[in-house]
Amino acid sequence: MALYVYKFGGTSVGSVERIKSVAEKVKKVQDQGDQIIVVLSAMSGETNRLIALAKQMQTQPTDREMDVLISTGEQVTVALLCMALHELGCKATSYTGTQVKILTDSAFTKARIREIEDIKIRADLDGGKIVVVAGFQGVDEQGNITTLGRGGSDTTAVALAAALKADECHIYTDVDGVYTTDPRVEPKARRLNHITFEEMLEMASLGSKVLQIRSVEFAGKYNVALRVLSSFKEGCGTLITYEESQMESALISGIAFNRDEAKLTITGVPDLPGVAYKILGPIADANIEVDMIVQNIADDATTDFTFTVDRNNYQRAKAILEESCVELGARKVTGDNAIVKVSIVGVGMRSHAGIASMMFKTLASEGINIRMIATSEIKISVVVDEKYLELAVRALHAAFELDQITAEA
Amino acid sequence: MALYVYKFGGTSVGSVERIKSVAEKVKKVQDQGDQIIVVLSAMSGETNRLIALAKQMQTQPTDREMDVLISTGEQVTVALLCMALHELGCKATSYTGTQVKILTDSAFTKARIREIEDIKIRADLDGGKIVVVAGFQGVDEQGNITTLGRGGSDTTAVALAAALKADECHIYTDVDGVYTTDPRVEPKARRLNHITFEEMLEMASLGSKVLQIRSVEFAGKYNVALRVLSSFKEGCGTLITYEESQMESALISGIAFNRDEAKLTITGVPDLPGVAYKILGPIADANIEVDMIVQNIADDATTDFTFTVDRNNYQRAKAILEESCVELGARKVTGDNAIVKVSIVGVGMRSHAGIASMMFKTLASEGINIRMIATSEIKISVVVDEKYLELAVRALHAAFELDQITAEA
Repeated sequence: MALYVYKFGGTSVGSVERIKSVAEKVKKVQDQGDQIIVVLSAMSGETNRLIALAKQMQTQPTDREMDVLISTGEQVTVALLCMALHELGCKATSYTGTQVKILTDSAFTKARIREIEDIKIRADLDGGKIVVVAGFQGVDEQGNITTLGRGGSDTTAVALAAALKADECHIYTDVDGVYTTDPRVEPKARRLNHITFEEMLEMASLGSKVLQIRSVEFAGKYNVALRVLSSFKEGCGTLITYEESQMESALISGIAFNRDEAKLTITGVPDLPGVAYKILGPIADANIEVDMIVQNIADDATTDFTFTVDRNNYQRAKAILEESCVELGARKVTGDNAIVKVSIVGVGMRSHAGIASMMFKTLASEGINIRMIATSEIKISVVVDEKYLELAVRALHAAFELDQITAEA
Repeated sequence: MALYVYKFGGTSVGSVERIKSVAEKVKKVQDQGDQIIVVLSAMSGETNRLIALAKQMQTQPTDREMDVLISTGEQVTVALLCMALHELGCKATSYTGTQVKILTDSAFTKARIREIEDIKIRADLDGGKIVVVAGFQGVDEQGNITTLGRGGSDTTAVALAAALKADECHIYTDVDGVYTTDPRVEPKARRLNHITFEEMLEMASLGSKVLQIRSVEFAGKYNVALRVLSSFKEGCGTLITYEESQMESALISGIAFNRDEAKLTITGVPDLPGVAYKILGPIADANIEVDMIVQNIADDATTDFTFTVDRNNYQRAKAILEESCVELGARKVTGDNAIVKVSIVGVGMRSHAGIASMMFKTLASEGINIRMIATSEIKISVVVDEKYLELAVRALHAAFELDQITAEA
């Protein structure tokens, strides 16, 4: 007898009919003799509806009350799914985050899970019940309702799988797995049967927004086998584990990209200790996240410093940087917000030389100028002009033979 | 410094604008230097929307899950009101029934309050905060969410007023007080400035549905001064206390009526001990509530037995009674579902003789035939043909000079 955690996102429970079809899918697991915990998001659109209401009440709604408000979305779906399961003759009980209890810190709207009580859930499972838990929410030490931030239902599912030592955690979404790249950009993109946590982290943070990154970190940390699959299509999805696939021998697993980048450069900065902090400190203080960072020594006395930020923050970051430029006695600030980041990701590159040069050669042969490079152990990212995005992705997809991967059954 | 509990119903919080206007009303209390606890219902329509969703999932949704589902309605409004109060610069905190905690029994969908913890609320009030509590809901010993049944928000308000020893509990509705009778039937109906708990109980149970009857019982039991007033109109509403008014010397306080009655009679029942139980037992077993009961001795050996039920239950009750008729060896069953009940209510009738005869004389002079009579210490009810309802109400309103009451400021 295996124990599964199934998580269904907002579109998967977006209507009465879809909730009923989730109930049928869940019932099958029990019919097979396995135990199951179901984690649900709010019906699609509901969280946005509630946020819109809040914004009408207060320009900047208080975080505590925001959590009281939006946590109702999942409470509605867990009750409805239990009713649908009862209608199918299954025993099922719903739990809010408070009821479980999923203990978090008190960082409203972005709380972190500290501990999960498994007593009630374990007793229900052993009593032949299906346990249905509201995703995305928890409770702090004082009994305040907290939420885990957008996409937090994935985190709830993984945390429950870890706490209850589930055999697999299934994340049902509207895509049927993790792809070698975005099929809207490269129609030859293939679904991966298997990917490692590290690769998934690089893919997720680089813009392949299949899973919330925190849930992948969490799954990796507690070694929870994670499977991404579609609510609407049959298939075995993509399994995410520590093990490297035996079957898929490709050098890289996928190509991620991010259209929302902007690049800022400060040149001629007197090269003194602490200069990086002096440049990035004010940016961080303004709550602007920095992505890639590259520093070059221009000559003996000065350095050039380049970094990327989210395109929404480009103007603010530039203004801050211009102030720093004066203070530091640097030469000038330049920037570009018509750039994108393209990355190749794969644990295979650890053991294979020449991946980087193959990437650069492929881009060069298409006449694509590389504006910035950053590398990690299993990832190489380049910044190129926005207009080259599709060309770069398709050329790399072909060069690394990603369309050749044989999908396993 | 006084402590008030203000309760706002669904229409009073039915839109963003209305919630904002509730916030302004509440702020005024604090600005006057008083403390305030606010109890809210769900936005009007929301509970029905949720019930409709539930019915689509399951023909007969489980009570536990129903409570998980519908308790979200109040959770939404308390968060929104806190945001509106914050926007006005007030300190305010919301609480669900679980958070307070409002401990109830485990009778889902119709739970009864056992105990209210006042620690957190007291601390908040003393810290200058406005406390906003979700009405209608509680939590049982096991941590399950419960609800108090329709109109339960009134009960929450009264229970909080009792637990916190509030000076007054204000129930804001869409009517501006308790009237001598329904103004839609008698346009000369006047608002009462004051009414006793006993009168209010008789008025409420007889169809003047201003307040949920349980909340009035509760208020009477714990001697909570209750005031019914309008969210939308200025005015001092109607105060409900134990004391009889000095100012209003009318013999009766109001005329209540109920259009939803049906009458059933079984005649020629052998008059043996336990016959009433044999007749009403099967009716109660079918969960049909009986209102008026009248028994007459027809002759030495048999008795005639008449009772009224809600018109919706007329056919079912009649079928049951026909079975009993055979079993008991009674003569026959007759019934009428085109009848109404009209009642005069007033503590004044305790000390004044002749109220009943004045009522009967008034009806007789209008040619209205009385089909059934029942009396209590402060109420006289008659059943008449449906077509006479308006005539009876207006004639009694005039006869008892209810249009003469001087409304106090």
